[in-house]
Amino acid sequence: MKKGSFLLQKIKNGLLGAVIIVTPYLAEAQRRPSTIVSPEVLPDNSVIFRIKAPNATKAQVVGTWSRGFKPNEMVKKDSVFEVKVGPIPSDMYEYDIIVDGLPMLDPLNKTVTRDGAWIQSRLMVPGGLGDIIDVKPVPHGDLKAVWYDSPTVGTEQRRMFIYTPPGYDKSNKKYPVMYLLHGGGGDEEGWVSRGRANYILDNLIAAKKAEPMIVVITNGDVNNIGAPLDRPANLPKKDNTGIGAMAAGVFEKSLVKDVIPYIESNYRVIADADHRAVTGFSMGGFHTQNITNANPTMFKYIGVMSMGLWSAARNDPNFDKTAYIAQLKALQKANPKVYWIGMGTDDFLYKSCVELRKVYDEIGFKYIYRENIGNHDWNSWRLYLSEFAPLLFK
Amino acid sequence: MKKGSFLLQKIKNGLLGAVIIVTPYLAEAQRRPSTIVSPEVLPDNSVIFRIKAPNATKAQVVGTWSRGFKPNEMVKKDSVFEVKVGPIPSDMYEYDIIVDGLPMLDPLNKTVTRDGAWIQSRLMVPGGLGDIIDVKPVPHGDLKAVWYDSPTVGTEQRRMFIYTPPGYDKSNKKYPVMYLLHGGGGDEEGWVSRGRANYILDNLIAAKKAEPMIVVITNGDVNNIGAPLDRPANLPKKDNTGIGAMAAGVFEKSLVKDVIPYIESNYRVIADADHRAVTGFSMGGFHTQNITNANPTMFKYIGVMSMGLWSAARNDPNFDKTAYIAQLKALQKANPKVYWIGMGTDDFLYKSCVELRKVYDEIGFKYIYRENIGNHDWNSWRLYLSEFAPLLFK
Repeated sequence: MKKGSFLLQKIKNGLLGAVIIVTPYLAEAQRRPSTIVSPEVLPDNSVIFRIKAPNATKAQVVGTWSRGFKPNEMVKKDSVFEVKVGPIPSDMYEYDIIVDGLPMLDPLNKTVTRDGAWIQSRLMVPGGLGDIIDVKPVPHGDLKAVWYDSPTVGTEQRRMFIYTPPGYDKSNKKYPVMYLLHGGGGDEEGWVSRGRANYILDNLIAAKKAEPMIVVITNGDVNNIGAPLDRPANLPKKDNTGIGAMAAGVFEKSLVKDVIPYIESNYRVIADADHRAVTGFSMGGFHTQNITNANPTMFKYIGVMSMGLWSAARNDPNFDKTAYIAQLKALQKANPKVYWIGMGTDDFLYKSCVELRKVYDEIGFKYIYRENIGNHDWNSWRLYLSEFAPLLFK
Repeated sequence: MKKGSFLLQKIKNGLLGAVIIVTPYLAEAQRRPSTIVSPEVLPDNSVIFRIKAPNATKAQVVGTWSRGFKPNEMVKKDSVFEVKVGPIPSDMYEYDIIVDGLPMLDPLNKTVTRDGAWIQSRLMVPGGLGDIIDVKPVPHGDLKAVWYDSPTVGTEQRRMFIYTPPGYDKSNKKYPVMYLLHGGGGDEEGWVSRGRANYILDNLIAAKKAEPMIVVITNGDVNNIGAPLDRPANLPKKDNTGIGAMAAGVFEKSLVKDVIPYIESNYRVIADADHRAVTGFSMGGFHTQNITNANPTMFKYIGVMSMGLWSAARNDPNFDKTAYIAQLKALQKANPKVYWIGMGTDDFLYKSCVELRKVYDEIGFKYIYRENIGNHDWNSWRLYLSEFAPLLFK
């Protein structure tokens, strides 16, 4: 038996045919016509989007490269709509195609990310920040979905992700830990699916820009044990809305009472404040403030992303500013090594952050302020992680 | 400060508002109108699907509850299309909504699964098999995405998933291992995203139907190091098609030379044939046959799902039947405890499986044959896993 021709014959006769036959549904040719590509990233970092939609009269693409979410109108040639966008800066972007008013995934793009209810196509534009976010030929850390007991929240196990840096399994070294929190409506999958935290860390560690560290990615929605595919299906609707529960102060306690002890007893961790960091965006920036204000000696590295002074402090007549300032002064006394604030120019919470900094400035509370031209979105949060992680544990 | 009212006020004034404001894009109201629900599973396990599509003239839902993929026509009332399907048997299903000929996700459903290029909405119907597939209040095993060296395939690390059963971290016990392989065009994420292998195992172990075991979920496409989001973006198109590479015999060697040694040196494993199982569907059933035919003493538990005699054996005049039968007889002599074959009545490979069984019968090679009313799809493969896993390591 001639091996080469045997294999070729095998593929020709059977399996390749099988795969073509196997395609379920009538819709294959509509969904992924083999002659068109989308998105196509050109050498100058402009991008062509295409969709075959013979029956449609209008198609647009709308993505996070436009901070105002301005749609790009597609032009129909025969049955295919097309538009060229950019060049746009190297980064990762989320986008939809809107066909006759209905937003949908790009059917030709296999990379789909999710944050909360937002399920969108992924675009990666190489050469700069995109290369820090992308999978590169560097050593990769492992990522484990773990179920832990969380008596502070309830009786059921809850789910989180734990990133261990390259080499963790083969060393006896102890590592510092960053706790990484998500925003309102999100869950533990956000920093993985859309935030790419593990790959950002892989790339920063390989470039010796960040110290090797463990990263713990929690679920801050105490109404749900895990992400949508990782909790019971068909929950009553009330259990699927987590905003109120996320702001009720329970998650912050569970991080301190349940999560940190789990990590420090199950992983090789340097269990002191000098080797503990916490950061999060939006609701997770609020959680970060609450956790570190209430536990001033627990973290020496603190990052607040896209969050300012919460509204109660600004609007609630019952707000106890004295108690709040006393907490901040205790934190100030504990002398964090890095207190980092990131805010985008177009963020709807921009003003609340001006107010937060004003309070900090009034009491001489030191922080690093990083303002980027950006919005309240993952383009800012991935950027912040790529800049915050290198400041830690030096 | 009154804590209760303080928190309520905080939510009312600020954060809830923030979340509403934060919703990016113009399309929010179109995408997830708060007044409609989809899918809605009724007490009798019929299901209502709804989509708001004011500009559309036709909408259908097509899902794996119909083995012939017959679409269910939706009816438009005002701007919302709706259809009631079923009652349908308890199971997990994949579906699309087709609007004016264009297949899309159900915009109201947060659960989306992927196998290869197939990205679809997920429906879970409770009460029977669905309950074995769903997340239940039982102890959960952990699931780790691991990067391992695979010199047999190339120089870059490759990605796989490792499920460790509940209690693994807290015991010193050694465990048996099942190697779980995917089909053509797929990757290591299929058995997690769509196959729900970890939850099926959680539920079987909790019910004492399956022995606690480690499950190793590999990527059989040697042209790619990992799933679409876990490999470099913007690869040239030729590197994104894996069918030829998957059938070229390299993966089978790498499982034996790279994967199994990694598992047996990094996990607490009983490293003998009595405690090793391998199974896979379609291309993974072909891989399973190749691996166990070439390594007859390595696995005592073997499962071939939705795959028969490969086409070369039927069509290639150069096929060396003598060598093939000699391999089978060596496997027969090694006396596997379970050799299990699962096949659906509507599977396009049904006939090839008749031929496979004919060869086995001719030489008196023993196997268990399980035929289900089903197709070449995940409804069969999840069912098979739920029936094969309980047969192992007894």
